Amino acid sequence: MSENQAAITVDLGGTNLRVALVANNQVVKRIMHPTPRGAEEIVGLISKQALEFTDQGVIGIAIAAPGTASPQMDRLSKAPNLPELNNYPMAAEITRQTKLPCIIENDANVYAMGETFFGAAVGLHTVVVYTLGTGVGGGIILSGKLWRGVNGAAAEIGHISIDEDGHLCGCGARGCLETYASATAMARLAKEYGSEANTAKKAFELAHEGDEGAQRAFVRAGSALGIAIAGMLNTLNPQAVVIGGGGSSAYPLLEPEIEKQLKVRAFPAALENFKLLKCTLGNDAALLGGAALLKEALQ
Amino acid sequence: MSENQAAITVDLGGTNLRVALVANNQVVKRIMHPTPRGAEEIVGLISKQALEFTDQGVIGIAIAAPGTASPQMDRLSKAPNLPELNNYPMAAEITRQTKLPCIIENDANVYAMGETFFGAAVGLHTVVVYTLGTGVGGGIILSGKLWRGVNGAAAEIGHISIDEDGHLCGCGARGCLETYASATAMARLAKEYGSEANTAKKAFELAHEGDEGAQRAFVRAGSALGIAIAGMLNTLNPQAVVIGGGGSSAYPLLEPEIEKQLKVRAFPAALENFKLLKCTLGNDAALLGGAALLKEALQ
Repeated sequence: MSENQAAITVDLGGTNLRVALVANNQVVKRIMHPTPRGAEEIVGLISKQALEFTDQGVIGIAIAAPGTASPQMDRLSKAPNLPELNNYPMAAEITRQTKLPCIIENDANVYAMGETFFGAAVGLHTVVVYTLGTGVGGGIILSGKLWRGVNGAAAEIGHISIDEDGHLCGCGARGCLETYASATAMARLAKEYGSEANTAKKAFELAHEGDEGAQRAFVRAGSALGIAIAGMLNTLNPQAVVIGGGGSSAYPLLEPEIEKQLKVRAFPAALENFKLLKCTLGNDAALLGGAALLKEALQ
Repeated sequence: MSENQAAITVDLGGTNLRVALVANNQVVKRIMHPTPRGAEEIVGLISKQALEFTDQGVIGIAIAAPGTASPQMDRLSKAPNLPELNNYPMAAEITRQTKLPCIIENDANVYAMGETFFGAAVGLHTVVVYTLGTGVGGGIILSGKLWRGVNGAAAEIGHISIDEDGHLCGCGARGCLETYASATAMARLAKEYGSEANTAKKAFELAHEGDEGAQRAFVRAGSALGIAIAGMLNTLNPQAVVIGGGGSSAYPLLEPEIEKQLKVRAFPAALENFKLLKCTLGNDAALLGGAALLKEALQ
C-alpha cells in the first residue's frame, strides 16, 4: 500500500472477532467483539464495524479465519471451527454491504505474512512460520509471496510425521508434529513425564522452577520441532523460520533443542545464513498480515 | 524454446557423461563417454562434444550434475561425487571454448523438470519428483518454475526423518527417508527381513516369486515414502508426485503402500485431484529437462 492507503483487517476466531484499521503498517484503530453465531450475523458485524472504521484511503477488507480458503479467496471452503461459514459467499456479501473489495485467507497464512513483512523476519522474502497454539499450523512465504498450494491447502506444517506409531492426532494420523509441539501437547507431555502441570503455561512456570517432568516436555517438543524444521529446510531451503503462536513463549526452552536437531539433520548448504527467529508481533500479526495480503491481492 | 531452437544437454555422472542435442522436445542426437578425471578434462570433453553436435539454432548448453549448483548456476558449489569440480568455473570455461551460454544445475532438479514438462506430469505446473537411486533425491516445480531455495539447496527430499532413531544415513542423521527408499536401502531391508537378495533388482525379482522378506522390504520402503509424501502434500499441496529413478521399477509394489499412508496422513484438501505418477522418460529425463532449464534461464 502506498503511504496514503489503509486497510480494514479482521481476525475472525471461533470465540472472538477482532477488527482493525491498518495504516502505515500500523494498527491505528482496533475493536474486539465476541464472535456471533450464524453466517449472516458474522458478516453483518464485520460489515458494520468496517463501515465505522472506514477512513479515506481504505482499499479493502482482509479476513483471517480458521479453515481453508477457496482458491478465489472469496469464502471458506473448509471451516471446521465456524461451520456456518462453510462455503458461505462471505466476501461477496461483505462487499455488497460495504462497497469495499474483500478477501478471505487461512488465519495461519495471514499471521505468517504479518511476521514476515512487519515482524520477526522483516526484510526477508523466503520464510516459513510455525504457529504453536491449540494445534500447530503455519504459513510459507516464497520469494515474497504466500504459497497457498493448488487447492489453498498448503502449509499444514503441523501434520508432518515425527513418529508413525505415535500419539493419535486430531487429523486422524499418528505422531504428527502437532502431537508434540502444540500447547495442548506440551501440557500432555509434561503430565506423561510426571509433572503436575495441566496447561502449557503452568508447565512453563514449573519448568522454570526446576520441575524435571515439565522440562522434559519442552525438550521433547523442541526436538520434534527441530526434526520437522530440518526436513523442511532440506525441502525448501528458506532464509528463516519464525516460531509463533502462544506456545512460542516457551521459545527459550525450545530453541536449544531445535538447534541441536538442525545441526545433525539439516544439510550444511541449507543452514548457510539461515535464521531461527521468535515472533515479535503477538496478537497483531494477523491484523497486520491482512494488510500485506490485501496489497498482494489487489495489485 | 521456439520450434527452431535446440539445446545441447549434458547428464554428467560420476561414471558416465552423456551429451545430447535436443530439438522439438526430443533427443535427436546422443553420445556417452566414460567421465574423465580432472576438471579441465571434463570441461574439455563437454565442449568438444557440444561443438560436434552444434547445429543451427542451438541456444546454449545445460549441464545436470550431482551436487549443489551455485545460485548463479555457473558452477557446482558442492560436488561430493566430482570433487574436482567443486567451485571450478565450469560454465565460463565451457562458454569460452564453445561461444555458447552454459548453465549448471543439480541433476535431480533437472530430472524433475524433464518428467514435469515432457514426461509423467506433462501439462501440470506444480509437481514434486522423487528419484529413488543410490540415494533418494528429487526436484520441486512450483507454478511452472524450479524451486531452488535461497542457496540452491532445496529438494533434498530424501532427507526427511521417518524414524529419528533409525538407520544411520549417509548425511549423518538417522532414519531419513533415504534409509528406507533408496535402491541400496531396499536391498538392505530385504536382507534384514530374511531374504537372500543382495540388490534391489534381485529383491524385486524374488518379491515377484513370493519371497516374503523381499516383499516386506518393498512394503516398508513404500510406507516410508508414503509418510514422507503425506507430510510434503500437507506442506506444499502440489498437483502431482512423480516417482522416478531406478528404484521406480518397484512402483507396482510401492504404490499401494504409498496410497495407504496418504489416505491416513494427507489432508483431504491436499488429496483433491492429486495424482501419484510413475516416471515415463527413463534416462532421457535429465537430457530433456536440460532443455527446459535452459529455456527458463535464458528467458
